[in-house]
Amino acid sequence: MAIEIFWGSGSGPSWRVLLALAIKKLPYESHLLSFSKGEHKSPEMLAMNPRGKVPVLKDGAFHLSESLAILTYLDRKYPSPPLFGETPEEAGIVLRVIMEHECYGLAPISAFARPLLFGRLDTQRDQVLLAIDGARAELAGLESELASRPFLATSKISAADAFVYPQIKTLERAFGKPGAAEVDHGLGPLAETFPRLASWCGRVEALPGYDATYPPHWREG
Amino acid sequence: MAIEIFWGSGSGPSWRVLLALAIKKLPYESHLLSFSKGEHKSPEMLAMNPRGKVPVLKDGAFHLSESLAILTYLDRKYPSPPLFGETPEEAGIVLRVIMEHECYGLAPISAFARPLLFGRLDTQRDQVLLAIDGARAELAGLESELASRPFLATSKISAADAFVYPQIKTLERAFGKPGAAEVDHGLGPLAETFPRLASWCGRVEALPGYDATYPPHWREG
Repeated sequence: MAIEIFWGSGSGPSWRVLLALAIKKLPYESHLLSFSKGEHKSPEMLAMNPRGKVPVLKDGAFHLSESLAILTYLDRKYPSPPLFGETPEEAGIVLRVIMEHECYGLAPISAFARPLLFGRLDTQRDQVLLAIDGARAELAGLESELASRPFLATSKISAADAFVYPQIKTLERAFGKPGAAEVDHGLGPLAETFPRLASWCGRVEALPGYDATYPPHWREG
Repeated sequence: MAIEIFWGSGSGPSWRVLLALAIKKLPYESHLLSFSKGEHKSPEMLAMNPRGKVPVLKDGAFHLSESLAILTYLDRKYPSPPLFGETPEEAGIVLRVIMEHECYGLAPISAFARPLLFGRLDTQRDQVLLAIDGARAELAGLESELASRPFLATSKISAADAFVYPQIKTLERAFGKPGAAEVDHGLGPLAETFPRLASWCGRVEALPGYDATYPPHWREG
């Protein structure tokens, strides 16, 4: 029976899971849900995740929510290639990078990017401005991880890359939105501000199967 | 060479690691740091974790921060008994419980408990009142996990229990602080409001080695 993935276009947590499936070259049945139609809150979805959040994985009779939980399950069920490093030390570093991003990086990146992405700069300009320093600190921290290795946590692509990458691309997308140019954020373009991070994005994008993970509605503009 | 743990009394993330070491019956060298003296921000500590946060693990030449990363490292390095379940499905559920707590439960529990613990109810009463519903939802969610099993994620004690338990005890401690009785929170005592959660606390506390994990300054009142 095929793995099924219920996901949404532009959802960072969903993208993490699609990237992990590409790393493992696992086939899956894709269920792209429409947020605007509320398909992620259907009775069928709420039965699998009462929080009504995506992604949700279904593998036979088993279903699971929370992106890091899904990455963990996939790695235990389909171990090769490993998502969490080859050694205990590498596994620890993968989780450190993930949890530092989760606890310190995600909030300022979202606070900066979401008002731009949703056209709310007029009413949420203060939030955007307040988030710049935190977002810069996160980018600088990731740039620093990349000083000694090609991927965020180990010498090969890992769960840390799958976990962090969607937020970096979301931030880059925000740079191109109306109003972003008038905000003197200095965070990008990444190729100029954080060149190792920009090169790392290129390495993630060289992953076979990457194109199928890209948010469909982003291709439309 | 012994595992070394740098930790602080009352730090929930530190407590998680001490509980994991007790589950695995691993000996360790304890370095209890004084927050009030700023020992967690010493040059030696900042060299191991630039964020100046505890816990930090040192195992020979390797050091690591972030509690979930440390739990992951310990489980890979010292696999028995497992902290992340016996099967891929169990590992997934352990991480789901952990990440749901991290993403949805931690914030309201902290927002409720910290003003009471630090004697700031007078100035932060609104924050406490606003956090009640979120804290109740988290406790109800955990109570529901315990409907079908004795521990939060699997039939045996796991990383999910070590991860969540410190915040539940922090919340219980807040119930006994000055002013808590006048806040009509209805969250406790747990034995009345969430009886399965109260029994689960007892099962965690039956763990051999539990006493050594208890925050020393909590014994003083």
